[in-house]
Amino acid sequence: MSVVAKKIGVIMGSTRNPRACPLFTNFIIDIIKTTNPSAILDKKNKVSLEIVDLNDFALPMLNETIPPLLIKNSSNYDHSHTKKWSEKISTFDGFIIVSPQYNWGYPAVLKNAIDYLCHEWFEKPVMIVTYGGYGGNKCNEQLTQVLRDGLRMKVTDKTVMLKFPSREFALEVVSDKYMSKSFLSEGLFSEYKDDVVSAFDELVEKL
Amino acid sequence: MSVVAKKIGVIMGSTRNPRACPLFTNFIIDIIKTTNPSAILDKKNKVSLEIVDLNDFALPMLNETIPPLLIKNSSNYDHSHTKKWSEKISTFDGFIIVSPQYNWGYPAVLKNAIDYLCHEWFEKPVMIVTYGGYGGNKCNEQLTQVLRDGLRMKVTDKTVMLKFPSREFALEVVSDKYMSKSFLSEGLFSEYKDDVVSAFDELVEKL
Repeated sequence: MSVVAKKIGVIMGSTRNPRACPLFTNFIIDIIKTTNPSAILDKKNKVSLEIVDLNDFALPMLNETIPPLLIKNSSNYDHSHTKKWSEKISTFDGFIIVSPQYNWGYPAVLKNAIDYLCHEWFEKPVMIVTYGGYGGNKCNEQLTQVLRDGLRMKVTDKTVMLKFPSREFALEVVSDKYMSKSFLSEGLFSEYKDDVVSAFDELVEKL
Repeated sequence: MSVVAKKIGVIMGSTRNPRACPLFTNFIIDIIKTTNPSAILDKKNKVSLEIVDLNDFALPMLNETIPPLLIKNSSNYDHSHTKKWSEKISTFDGFIIVSPQYNWGYPAVLKNAIDYLCHEWFEKPVMIVTYGGYGGNKCNEQLTQVLRDGLRMKVTDKTVMLKFPSREFALEVVSDKYMSKSFLSEGLFSEYKDDVVSAFDELVEKL
């Protein structure tokens, strides 16, 4: 029996420098790899994870002339940056999105990357991870609405909202003090491990 | 008695080309000027409207190193593009935001412009106008959450949601057929005139 590997893109929702997003993204990936290797390694249901850094695509503000809803083939986009982004997203069977909350909503850089495409997202499963003062719960809700209702993606019911332990943490999280930390080994956010595993299990089921 | 003029910035929420946003923005301004001149002309409560086109600021994706919440003076921003944007927004006492709905949410270019600043928005009144298949009602809700709860702006309770009459209209609205139209003189969207006037009255009261 041939094995068709499923690919999951782990999209980091921010591009600012300094940024905490890679820390949280690696935290999520570490949990998945250390606690749930069966889904990764099982040859019948092989799953690979690949980080997608929006910095690598440097998309300008949406500047396609044809609404993405009307595009069915990536060759019909106006710009090479859109074609490159479309081709990357088309390679994935599902997604994990890891995002900070900005002013109770999603970061513009993430929404811009989402809005560039349409058929590339359609009906694919996605798991949303947010972080912030209240776990980024409002960003999580708004992003769910965009992906589930706007783009008909299969958003997992289980979700992950990593709540900062204090305001001080929020201000320090992008400083040198935390930049080198592994949230997993330090025990920070360890209470969210079950959330990550159960959301990821649901994601794999929906693939 | 000296008269202090109040300035309202009318921010267009999209920058795509072609775009319908200038049509809808002019539609709103026309209604205000033709039906409610007292608020504009009354010398005790003089109000001026100025269109703000995000294309004129060409903000890149948020790239300030210090979170906007911690900035109290525009000289503390890293970049000249941020200072220019901050200085423009600081000149206004209130805002009208006119925005399309993208995938049930707000356009990235608008959210990016919002997220760049903080104290410049704080406690200022704002009236939200959206347009789209269902009047952009979900964008309107998400934007209200960002501005009211995220940035503590005084969002008017009355709102304007301009519902496209058909899917065909949505596809044609950015074509040559409509680009030269005045929605007001053609009677298109005339049913929303009362919504515009009452939301604007509330905005002026909150100034």
